[in-house]
Amino acid sequence: MALKYYFTHGPSELYFTVPDHIKNALNEKVGSISHRSSQFQGYFKHATKQLRLLLNIPETHHIVFTNSANEIWERLLQNCVKEHSLHFVNGAFSKKFHEFAIQLRKSPQKVEVPFGEGFTEKHLEIPENIEMVAVTQNETSAGVSFPLEYLPILRKNNPDALITVDAVSSVPYPNFDFSGIDSLYFSVQKGMGLPAGLGVWILNNRCIEKATQLENEGLSIGTYHSIPSLLKQAASFQTPATPNVLGIYLLGKVAEDMNRRGAEVIRQETNYKAAFMYQALENSPYFEPLVQEKQHRSKTVIVAKCLQKTPAEVLAYFAKKNMILGSGYGSYKSEQIRIANFPTHSKESFLMLVDLIEGM
Amino acid sequence: MALKYYFTHGPSELYFTVPDHIKNALNEKVGSISHRSSQFQGYFKHATKQLRLLLNIPETHHIVFTNSANEIWERLLQNCVKEHSLHFVNGAFSKKFHEFAIQLRKSPQKVEVPFGEGFTEKHLEIPENIEMVAVTQNETSAGVSFPLEYLPILRKNNPDALITVDAVSSVPYPNFDFSGIDSLYFSVQKGMGLPAGLGVWILNNRCIEKATQLENEGLSIGTYHSIPSLLKQAASFQTPATPNVLGIYLLGKVAEDMNRRGAEVIRQETNYKAAFMYQALENSPYFEPLVQEKQHRSKTVIVAKCLQKTPAEVLAYFAKKNMILGSGYGSYKSEQIRIANFPTHSKESFLMLVDLIEGM
Repeated sequence: MALKYYFTHGPSELYFTVPDHIKNALNEKVGSISHRSSQFQGYFKHATKQLRLLLNIPETHHIVFTNSANEIWERLLQNCVKEHSLHFVNGAFSKKFHEFAIQLRKSPQKVEVPFGEGFTEKHLEIPENIEMVAVTQNETSAGVSFPLEYLPILRKNNPDALITVDAVSSVPYPNFDFSGIDSLYFSVQKGMGLPAGLGVWILNNRCIEKATQLENEGLSIGTYHSIPSLLKQAASFQTPATPNVLGIYLLGKVAEDMNRRGAEVIRQETNYKAAFMYQALENSPYFEPLVQEKQHRSKTVIVAKCLQKTPAEVLAYFAKKNMILGSGYGSYKSEQIRIANFPTHSKESFLMLVDLIEGM
Repeated sequence: MALKYYFTHGPSELYFTVPDHIKNALNEKVGSISHRSSQFQGYFKHATKQLRLLLNIPETHHIVFTNSANEIWERLLQNCVKEHSLHFVNGAFSKKFHEFAIQLRKSPQKVEVPFGEGFTEKHLEIPENIEMVAVTQNETSAGVSFPLEYLPILRKNNPDALITVDAVSSVPYPNFDFSGIDSLYFSVQKGMGLPAGLGVWILNNRCIEKATQLENEGLSIGTYHSIPSLLKQAASFQTPATPNVLGIYLLGKVAEDMNRRGAEVIRQETNYKAAFMYQALENSPYFEPLVQEKQHRSKTVIVAKCLQKTPAEVLAYFAKKNMILGSGYGSYKSEQIRIANFPTHSKESFLMLVDLIEGM
């Protein structure tokens, strides 16, 4: 059986160096070492150092590990919001974050646009009492991006609010300016091309201060994965509980591989492949890009509406060639497909995909 | 360099079939498949089926996955305790669970005995208002076991309280009777011999009812990993967030391997190796078992006090032979060592260890 090749939106095709790193991990017995050993501290240090380089994370920001981005939503709300978070909602994941706030008995607000649409400058006016603004920089369900240039505007207009950015399915593509971001997070099974089971959370001292303030007011900010607990352990390159040690090891290795290629090269290639794919979709009688407004089109998760053929037929057509594309989110499954454009997806693989689209 | 062999208390030596399963996982592209695919549902189903067989889990109990046992402490307190949990504390981990309850603003109580000691029948009398009794069946820090025959007594004396059992470092050894247990949990990097990053939580309908009751009273029971959310997804062999897919795949494979060997055989071998090791420690002038009372001695995590030589010297002596033993917990590092006796540790490896003890 020929190997399948995954263009899914995450979990996705593993970064091409991962199998070799896993073999080395078995030889180094990474799965057996203590998470309190200097060997583990070395892996932690290496992963955070390579991430700083890859994502240009300044020393003002700390890096800690959780188990998923969903967990980070919960921790952010517990640690950084007493009552009022504001969520930019334009798809299933930004909506879910807003729902988490309700489940935690906060009083969240939202700025909402329809599925497949993005935000414009007029949406950036928000109420004064907001403690945390939640931006989903790349809505994985709808393939819509939040323009990076809006982040400094949000910061400027709301100097007291924490700005938190969900970059789950866009990292390592965007060139973030962390001076306007208090917290940013992602999970590793998307653009980083790693097996699922690890979340990465980047946060500054304003988040710590907020957590400490809430705790001093008598609120519970959680237990082992509260911000103070995560940071206390991270200061000595450790984690509060036994973490996904193999995941942290692999993250460091893959980030190092990506740094060897260079963040800027990855960015250019992503732009090139995205332009190429959107053009193919526009030219095909079988597809049309879901997102009309070009400025809002995600470069890393491309969502297409299916015309003439059903998504099931389309996915089956590609599957016959061992190319696995993503289905639309939830009920959009019956109308749409998703194609990931991550660093592991080579230009050659995209050429093949486009050839197949043209040959439909 | 010769491969090291880990007798540490977890993470520990991987079950000897794990490297092959990981190679197969790479071939099957387990790291790339969607967690909403039927392929993943198959892995989920397989893992829970094999666990039911291995641990003799009845249909009255559900199985869900979290990221760690620490997480399960937090989820238990959020979902099953309004105010009053009671914790049997005799080491660092049972103590931490009690502290989690304080951090979550509950009013926990504890029954405490000194480090290295176990509980006796006189400790089983507990107050009437307790909602959840937390038993650490195997205290990994001190190597002390809670006698299994006390569990039905606890249940009988406290029919309204939920009985929850921490079996983190004893599974799959104990032959639990689930009729007296409402919730039991473990993490996979101990006796199951897997890479860290996955918690397994077994729970019955009484836990669900309690969670629903608390939610109906207006309390927050968390978000994506609340009991209702975990069970809703588990009903279709899925998880609320993208899980450690590789971990769940490997768990199923290793549980299947263990079932092929048979739970009873594993139990007998564990007893044999434990008896052998405790005798060697008692006979050696360099060691003495920390736990005096034989009934309380853990079969799976054996803690020894070091005499004449420091623990650092002892660990270095074994490390020269590529055998990695565990250090004592926290500040006990300067007095004690720990030796794991998990299913992957063969009788032959224990014979070698004992030979080395006798040759000191």
